[in-house]
Amino acid sequence: KFIKNRRAAVLAFPFNGGQGREGVELGGMHLVEHGILEQLKEMEWETSFEPNEDIDTFRPSSDPDIEGLKKPRFVSSVTKRVAEQVSTAAKAGDFVVTLGGDHSLAMGTVSGVFEAYPDACLIWIDAHADINTPSTTDSGNMHGCPISFVMGIAGDIPEFAWIKKCLLPERLVYIGLRDVDPAEKKILKDNGIKAFSMHHVDKYGIGKVVEMALDHVNPNRDRPIHLSFDVDALDPSVAPSTGTPVRGGLTFREGHYICEALAETGLLVAADIMEVNPALEDEQAVFQTVQVGCSLTRCCLGETLL
Amino acid sequence: KFIKNRRAAVLAFPFNGGQGREGVELGGMHLVEHGILEQLKEMEWETSFEPNEDIDTFRPSSDPDIEGLKKPRFVSSVTKRVAEQVSTAAKAGDFVVTLGGDHSLAMGTVSGVFEAYPDACLIWIDAHADINTPSTTDSGNMHGCPISFVMGIAGDIPEFAWIKKCLLPERLVYIGLRDVDPAEKKILKDNGIKAFSMHHVDKYGIGKVVEMALDHVNPNRDRPIHLSFDVDALDPSVAPSTGTPVRGGLTFREGHYICEALAETGLLVAADIMEVNPALEDEQAVFQTVQVGCSLTRCCLGETLL
Amino acid sequence: KFIKNRRAAVLAFPFNGGQGREGVELGGMHLVEHGILEQLKEMEWETSFEPNEDIDTFRPSSDPDIEGLKKPRFVSSVTKRVAEQVSTAAKAGDFVVTLGGDHSLAMGTVSGVFEAYPDACLIWIDAHADINTPSTTDSGNMHGCPISFVMGIAGDIPEFAWIKKCLLPERLVYIGLRDVDPAEKKILKDNGIKAFSMHHVDKYGIGKVVEMALDHVNPNRDRPIHLSFDVDALDPSVAPSTGTPVRGGLTFREGHYICEALAETGLLVAADIMEVNPALEDEQAVFQTVQVGCSLTRCCLGETLL
Ligand SMILES: [Mn+2]
Ligand SMILES: [Mn+2]
Ligand SMILES: [Mn+2]
Ligand SMILES: [Mn+2]
Ligand SMILES: [Mn+2]
Ligand SMILES: [Mn+2]
Repeated sequence: KFIKNRRAAVLAFPFNGGQGREGVELGGMHLVEHGILEQLKEMEWETSFEPNEDIDTFRPSSDPDIEGLKKPRFVSSVTKRVAEQVSTAAKAGDFVVTLGGDHSLAMGTVSGVFEAYPDACLIWIDAHADINTPSTTDSGNMHGCPISFVMGIAGDIPEFAWIKKCLLPERLVYIGLRDVDPAEKKILKDNGIKAFSMHHVDKYGIGKVVEMALDHVNPNRDRPIHLSFDVDALDPSVAPSTGTPVRGGLTFREGHYICEALAETGLLVAADIMEVNPALEDEQAVFQTVQVGCSLTRCCLGETLL
Repeated sequence: KFIKNRRAAVLAFPFNGGQGREGVELGGMHLVEHGILEQLKEMEWETSFEPNEDIDTFRPSSDPDIEGLKKPRFVSSVTKRVAEQVSTAAKAGDFVVTLGGDHSLAMGTVSGVFEAYPDACLIWIDAHADINTPSTTDSGNMHGCPISFVMGIAGDIPEFAWIKKCLLPERLVYIGLRDVDPAEKKILKDNGIKAFSMHHVDKYGIGKVVEMALDHVNPNRDRPIHLSFDVDALDPSVAPSTGTPVRGGLTFREGHYICEALAETGLLVAADIMEVNPALEDEQAVFQTVQVGCSLTRCCLGETLL
Repeated sequence: KFIKNRRAAVLAFPFNGGQGREGVELGGMHLVEHGILEQLKEMEWETSFEPNEDIDTFRPSSDPDIEGLKKPRFVSSVTKRVAEQVSTAAKAGDFVVTLGGDHSLAMGTVSGVFEAYPDACLIWIDAHADINTPSTTDSGNMHGCPISFVMGIAGDIPEFAWIKKCLLPERLVYIGLRDVDPAEKKILKDNGIKAFSMHHVDKYGIGKVVEMALDHVNPNRDRPIHLSFDVDALDPSVAPSTGTPVRGGLTFREGHYICEALAETGLLVAADIMEVNPALEDEQAVFQTVQVGCSLTRCCLGETLL
């Protein structure tokens, strides 16, 4: 309903500054080398591509921790760029595909999508809640914090002053959670944020869970949807090459089901595919993870089985 | 209700002419060597066996393509034999078990079952729709075409004149689809054929899907049921030794659930177990695939967990 | 509701006399070495531990078969000790965690739990029904018989005279069955015992199955619950190191779901984790099985994803 011209803007951000493991900056280009751009063209999407190869020039010469957050200025300047590219493409009516890189990039994708579509809702597929604040994070890795920033609960940090409080708690829903910090559990509860953990996926089945998730954030099926998909939501047997794998995840089929079902609403306007790390695990594992990243992306853009 | 004497006619067809990979002709005999005949006898089925070892004598000296179809005369003469054996056994009141061989054999099994039971319905478990016509098939492999022939939409080809249009679109239902050609999708839609893809299995769960499938083809639970099970419907991790594996398939449990649930109706009159190819993958994979083929067969004949 | 002081009594029984494979006597200590005691303490359970290292002193010098049962006196004297320890801890208001050892130990755990809570119900998670009687068992291994003894259908054997008939058929429910002997099927049917096989898990989904199981044995959600979990209920890909693995079992997620859902009732008073055998399969398999044993235990004690 919101995408009229079947144009997809694919943005890759070779960025790993939101966490500590080398390699995740290569994720997006591996999907491109695996053919995702051609695949989208074959699906008759007019596809543009921005590789952002200059991302490292955003790295400040000095970047000491702020309130325990690591590389805060690097994360801030990169995600600001992300937000600009995403909002520009979204305002042009393009479907925005963002290929990470680590999940801190979502500070930018969410900012950008909600700049273009203030009434949007956010569906976050992840093993983790990524909602730590500067005061709750243990590791200081910002890929565990993006949601607290866009929700305006991270506190005032001048370096992140560009980020607007754009996400209301009731416009966010999680699917796939299974490794949530105690402080995050409290944040979810205190803010009344809806979350479907793997326990709920087992209890209700993925079909019902997606329906309930949509009923929560998009009851009249009239809001634009931003999907942010961390591949660690998938079981490590499905997507092994990622930085923080957790057992008991979504199956291959459930992961694709989610993307297909959201695409089927006709309301999806942006999709992030995050945390593919081709430096982890063996060659076969990388191939498998990259392949899954591509097929999830295609499903978001409307590929179906029938 | 239709099988009164607890007699099973097991027919093996060592045939690979409907596709291009050597080895699938050995599938049936591997199930027999694994003990399927003894297993059925232990389940108190009076069991006959026809190995059709002479099948290669049906191969014509010359067999040029017809409308792009490969080995058309060989396929036609073998499947005609299949139809005769199946209809004879079915008319005698036997439960007919057909062990492939490739899935082009189903031109014969469907013809034979519907000759004996004109009111039957067909439940097709497969990753593929196998409904290409001579004009839509890319490969020309006839294991991708059997349904178009028995449904009478393959066009008139003298070499296949023996095949009657016996299957109505509303008497067919698929479960497990996940690799369907664009032209096949159109055929399914144009003919209003009901199909449950893996997306639907995830959406509703296998229990509900089997129920909906039966409600469609057999609403009053009074028609004889022919089950045609291509082992590539199963996930490659479950049945690796098959010619055209596709990721995201039925689990071990779902595959067996289908057979158990159909047997439980008391309406099952024939079951095909197709596309086991013992020449593919390693020894352990072959063992596993053959073992699954046998246990699916036993479930069709009434083996239950409780 | 029944456990008031957040105290857990962890009892390990290094016993393998109920079956024929060496190694299962090491299961409990492997869970302890993997840190289960510390993990429960971190979850703020006041935790006691009894390793029962002297269990081998219960072995009689001579122990000929009785009615085909193997090592009957050894099993009887050990399980009598189990019953005493379990009932003492349960009467003190502790949550009782029993780490096997083989599943014949449940003759003791059930006796002990029902001594303390006569109105309890028993939820048995297993690939097997473990309800053979002396007259139906083929192997004579008593880990396949515990339920017949506590249900009072094993016949009178003086050596087991200490066991009271404490379990009514309607207070027992199974989940996970998939390898049940014909004689056991008859016992289940004759006694009207409710059992959810893997077929039912596929048919209804694990969420609905647990709900139906509770509705059966605990319709008003007011009875204490004893959970006896044989790790062979899990699929061999999840818990490979166990003596009698059977394909088509519970997934990692389903196994944990069961424990979480039972803990969520607030009625769970005792949990057995049985049949981990660290002598079987390779090191990685053992690690995985032990790890699952620990996480199932934690879920029983209230660990949740959110
Ligand atoms: Mn994550
Ligand atoms: Mn994430
Ligand atoms: Mn197929
Ligand atoms: Mn087929
Ligand atoms: Mn067992
Ligand atoms: Mn057991």
